[in-house]
Amino acid sequence: MEEINNIEVIPCTQSNYLKPLRVHYNQNGTKKTWDFMQTHDSVSVLIFNTTSHCFVLVKQFRPAVYMSEWERAKRQPPKSAEKTDEGSAEAAAPDSSEGQSASEGQSSSQWPLASTGITYELCAGLVDKPDLSLEEIARQEVLEECGYDVPVSKLRKITSYRSGVGVTGAKQTMFYAEVSDDNCVSAGGGEPQEGELIEVVKVPLHEAMTFAYDERLPKTMGVLFSFIWFHNNMSPKYKISTNV
Amino acid sequence: MEEINNIEVIPCTQSNYLKPLRVHYNQNGTKKTWDFMQTHDSVSVLIFNTTSHCFVLVKQFRPAVYMSEWERAKRQPPKSAEKTDEGSAEAAAPDSSEGQSASEGQSSSQWPLASTGITYELCAGLVDKPDLSLEEIARQEVLEECGYDVPVSKLRKITSYRSGVGVTGAKQTMFYAEVSDDNCVSAGGGEPQEGELIEVVKVPLHEAMTFAYDERLPKTMGVLFSFIWFHNNMSPKYKISTNV
Repeated sequence: MEEINNIEVIPCTQSNYLKPLRVHYNQNGTKKTWDFMQTHDSVSVLIFNTTSHCFVLVKQFRPAVYMSEWERAKRQPPKSAEKTDEGSAEAAAPDSSEGQSASEGQSSSQWPLASTGITYELCAGLVDKPDLSLEEIARQEVLEECGYDVPVSKLRKITSYRSGVGVTGAKQTMFYAEVSDDNCVSAGGGEPQEGELIEVVKVPLHEAMTFAYDERLPKTMGVLFSFIWFHNNMSPKYKISTNV
Repeated sequence: MEEINNIEVIPCTQSNYLKPLRVHYNQNGTKKTWDFMQTHDSVSVLIFNTTSHCFVLVKQFRPAVYMSEWERAKRQPPKSAEKTDEGSAEAAAPDSSEGQSASEGQSSSQWPLASTGITYELCAGLVDKPDLSLEEIARQEVLEECGYDVPVSKLRKITSYRSGVGVTGAKQTMFYAEVSDDNCVSAGGGEPQEGELIEVVKVPLHEAMTFAYDERLPKTMGVLFSFIWFHNNMSPKYKISTNV
């Protein structure tokens, strides 16, 4: 699906996005230091289409995930490389019929398949608009990323939790939104002018748990958690037939 | 429980822990740039004590979470502040009978209660020992943090997922470990020489789901997901009586 090439990695001394801070503090009288970064809180939305009985997810190339796979491939050369000189890091990457590895500027054997950096996620967004409520931000993300126009009143809060505790410590609030084909007003896909290249993906209800536990399909824990939440809380209305 | 004071925040230009990198790449012919950080993969372990029918979690002060609460308190002054000049940021912090706010070097009204930075988490650790399997690393964490000595063969893999997709893209693998009081060989609490101040917390099975969805108790999504996973997969053996 994605063609990723001309990859170049450099140290980042000045970033508009990543600004490491250091906090010195005393904890019960002991001097301590911690390096961290401040990020925005976020919202995520489990979208269920009641017309097609599908969950609506987004799928996108995530450079940080791709680079993590690259590091893993470097650390763990494929077993076949022990027998022949032709083993490449690509062979260690998850199976995929899609994707192209980099070929220019770097040896292609260094770069995993592009598909290893593509993750399935809930529709989500940062809480970076002080004038909007969490529900209004969630509503905007559902519209921009997935193309469904749902009123704020249809968003049900599931719960909130910490999206990180080590490097960042932001809070994420998860919502549930039931939509129908009638609410679909565009193809979604994010804001191309902001560089978003998002693909909307439908996961049929009866395949949801198999999808969730298929580790060959990289995903966030939010997908896993929300699918099980749906199973346990929406089951009077909709049945997931497979094991959870 | 925790006394946090003498808090000082400074820009962090050189960190042994946070090393921002920048990747330039072409995606389907479009030039793109992304700032990210490489972190280790990790393991987490849902521990269930079959003697006391409790989940075993860890609880610790997380500076990044605390600083996130501090930012939130600054952005959202308490409503009472609109009426009087005495409203302080502390009033906006979650209710807690524990914790002390900072008082030296900074105005105490700037700092939330220490308890707002204390999170409930699954026992977890970084995959930073190349010679050990994921199961062996998980086993070590269960012993060091929670004091239970369980054989690797007792660890059951639940699944894996991306612990981050934006700033970092590491993978986390979650395990399930059944322990009994007979496996308890120490009080746990982490490695004090490494600065770990971890408290072991038991959550009774019958209170688990109420605990999971109580947003006043800051926690990771791993706690939520694993508790529901247990409910759905271990229910033939153990019953969670409350709603999930």
